[in-house]
Amino acid sequence: MGMTITEKILAEHAGKKEVHPGELITAKIDLAMANDVTAPLAIKILEKYGIDKVFDPERIALVLSHFVPAKDIKSAEQAKIVREFVKKHGIKWFFEEGEGIEHAILPEQGLVVPGDLVVGADSHTCTYGALGAFATGVGSTDIAYAMATGEVWLRVPESMKFIFYGKLKPWVMGKDLILYTIGQIGVDGALYRAMEFDGETIRNLSMEQRFTIANMAIEAGGKSGIISPDEKTIEYVKQRAKRPWKVYQSDPDAEYHSVYEWDASQIEPLVAWPYLPSNVHPVSESTHITIDQAFIGSCTNGRIEDLRVAAKVFEAALKQGKKVHPYVRCIVIPASKAIYKQALKEGLIDIFMEAGCVVSTSTCGPCLGGHMGVLAEGERCISTSNRNFPGRMGHPKSESYLANPAVVAASAIMGRIAHPDEVVKAETLAGV
Amino acid sequence: MGMTITEKILAEHAGKKEVHPGELITAKIDLAMANDVTAPLAIKILEKYGIDKVFDPERIALVLSHFVPAKDIKSAEQAKIVREFVKKHGIKWFFEEGEGIEHAILPEQGLVVPGDLVVGADSHTCTYGALGAFATGVGSTDIAYAMATGEVWLRVPESMKFIFYGKLKPWVMGKDLILYTIGQIGVDGALYRAMEFDGETIRNLSMEQRFTIANMAIEAGGKSGIISPDEKTIEYVKQRAKRPWKVYQSDPDAEYHSVYEWDASQIEPLVAWPYLPSNVHPVSESTHITIDQAFIGSCTNGRIEDLRVAAKVFEAALKQGKKVHPYVRCIVIPASKAIYKQALKEGLIDIFMEAGCVVSTSTCGPCLGGHMGVLAEGERCISTSNRNFPGRMGHPKSESYLANPAVVAASAIMGRIAHPDEVVKAETLAGV
Repeated sequence: MGMTITEKILAEHAGKKEVHPGELITAKIDLAMANDVTAPLAIKILEKYGIDKVFDPERIALVLSHFVPAKDIKSAEQAKIVREFVKKHGIKWFFEEGEGIEHAILPEQGLVVPGDLVVGADSHTCTYGALGAFATGVGSTDIAYAMATGEVWLRVPESMKFIFYGKLKPWVMGKDLILYTIGQIGVDGALYRAMEFDGETIRNLSMEQRFTIANMAIEAGGKSGIISPDEKTIEYVKQRAKRPWKVYQSDPDAEYHSVYEWDASQIEPLVAWPYLPSNVHPVSESTHITIDQAFIGSCTNGRIEDLRVAAKVFEAALKQGKKVHPYVRCIVIPASKAIYKQALKEGLIDIFMEAGCVVSTSTCGPCLGGHMGVLAEGERCISTSNRNFPGRMGHPKSESYLANPAVVAASAIMGRIAHPDEVVKAETLAGV
Repeated sequence: MGMTITEKILAEHAGKKEVHPGELITAKIDLAMANDVTAPLAIKILEKYGIDKVFDPERIALVLSHFVPAKDIKSAEQAKIVREFVKKHGIKWFFEEGEGIEHAILPEQGLVVPGDLVVGADSHTCTYGALGAFATGVGSTDIAYAMATGEVWLRVPESMKFIFYGKLKPWVMGKDLILYTIGQIGVDGALYRAMEFDGETIRNLSMEQRFTIANMAIEAGGKSGIISPDEKTIEYVKQRAKRPWKVYQSDPDAEYHSVYEWDASQIEPLVAWPYLPSNVHPVSESTHITIDQAFIGSCTNGRIEDLRVAAKVFEAALKQGKKVHPYVRCIVIPASKAIYKQALKEGLIDIFMEAGCVVSTSTCGPCLGGHMGVLAEGERCISTSNRNFPGRMGHPKSESYLANPAVVAASAIMGRIAHPDEVVKAETLAGV
């Protein structure tokens, strides 16, 4: 019996020839990650047990991403705890406030490579699966254990396969494929399973789009999301990798919990309405919904390609004399400083500012109702982020709608949820 | 007996030929201003008294500047109250989040002109005095009254005159002149008085530098700060003014509470140590003080000239292979969107990002410990802002040091308070 890519990676890291779903293993990790919210908890646990040495200061990444630059004294104290730990232990991969969101930084800095086993104290750690790695979110206790020992205790997940074929319609992005998937199987449709994405449509996607897909595996309850490496993956990795990598592929006779095959050419841009990412509707059936805020950013959709697509919509609007709707605040937050700099270089920041957007330092910010755009009672936001539970972006009676960056940009201009074609036909633009 | 410029403006607005210090007057206002912190209180007062009409929707400016984009649900609710009031009353001069800080916006948009009487529900309203206007901070009750009636009740202040002569040393800016003044007379040295600045040194300063000086009049307890209009003022105003203006000058025989005359050529860049703006020390005697954070921004020093000066220091550092010190976070916040755009155009944002700074959307932010850079216990920040009281920028046991943007930039690079000459000699740069 063959193994899936996930089983192969876990077997290798557990020092076994093979592993099977349901099996409990102890596996060596390649990297442990925590942020300004979760690292302080882990650090306190290490201190409580008198552990004054980490397993490897070059295999730990600590990122200040959530409440930075500090939104209040409490978040300032949290960041301070992390900085002191970094100095004391000589942690090599420390990213200060403004460097960006961990799930953008780690891949772009080559800190995660194909074949890795990565644990992160953040639920969207599954993002790195787009590189053909096994990456999963764990709690602060588990990350403390991983930082101390270099190991993690896991139950081998079953795998589910999602195959997309067909050419995407204009303005349809990775975000729509993952929203479609969650819409089909529900928010617990992949509970504790590895979600493997494949098929010609996935293969035609850029790495940016793939990260978006793997990023939201957790929104279907997935333990991990994974896309096996191909030429695009290797091209991306070889410019960045800080370590050698190992490419795994699922065996043809690997066993799956279930296999879905979908015609992606039939999918139009989607919007997940409150209060579940699975509550998806075509954008064409959402255009009656007015909005107060639009947010382009987050670990899901704050990458350079996302910004480019949004900028195309805004640029087209500017040519028509249109800007962000007067009753809408549009907040753009590049997911990392590297992305911000690239966007500066390409003139995208100029376009956003000219269109009336607010552009902020890289931070998770409004995605989690953290800061930089928290919603008041009754306010509605369309967002490129990943969750729309009650109160996710602010007041429990606020509403978040999830969509791709082109839809969010078009909605910001129209003052209501809008198809990008309402602003500019994709056919008239190059490179969309 | 002649009158001061302040007395002349107040007399005109009180409909009198002359007014005298100590006299109580009711005066017509040209503009009433409030922000996201103070406007909601004023709006509640208006509602409480059943006042459903403002005196003139074109003479009210409401600016969302302090806790925006919303840092939490409470600030989101505050901003929402203001937006609803603006829609209901058709307030003409409303500035959304990200447009900037009121004290940068109002002058640059030509909403304050020479000869104006402006009241603002923010203590740094005195900034507009640099235009030869009488501008003073009032409480939310007074601003509610002003918004309802177009009038304000005032005691005519005594005036103090501060004359600076001599050529400034390199790297000495308006900030140093006002810190010097406060250092000389103390934080209550001008209590309830109008501070009038004059002399060849003041006349040689740009409008940006003059705004910095008038801005901090309140830090000496002043009711207002004022600089009588000259060619530079008129040049600035005529490109922007939304209304006609009237130039007043103090009479030669006007009476002053006191007159100070200082040789500005002897002043070196200064640093106000905690916990008072009057606790000034030469930067050369402050270089032993290490810092955790550096902040360039605020209504005091977040204007384009401030950013240019800071960028010159960073650019020189970059040429020497130096960046922001690894143990320092340097936060740069342009004081308005117009300034941000100009800085983008001039490549200043690129320089800040390249040097390792964090650049944020325009907001008051860290100046008042609001958000975007709040300090933890024991942390030290050097800041271009205006106050360094205990807890002003965060934890009560944090420390803020006030200085000009060149000193703050140099300190960010050195990791301790530093004279800009330690990074680059001013003589080697053009335009400093």
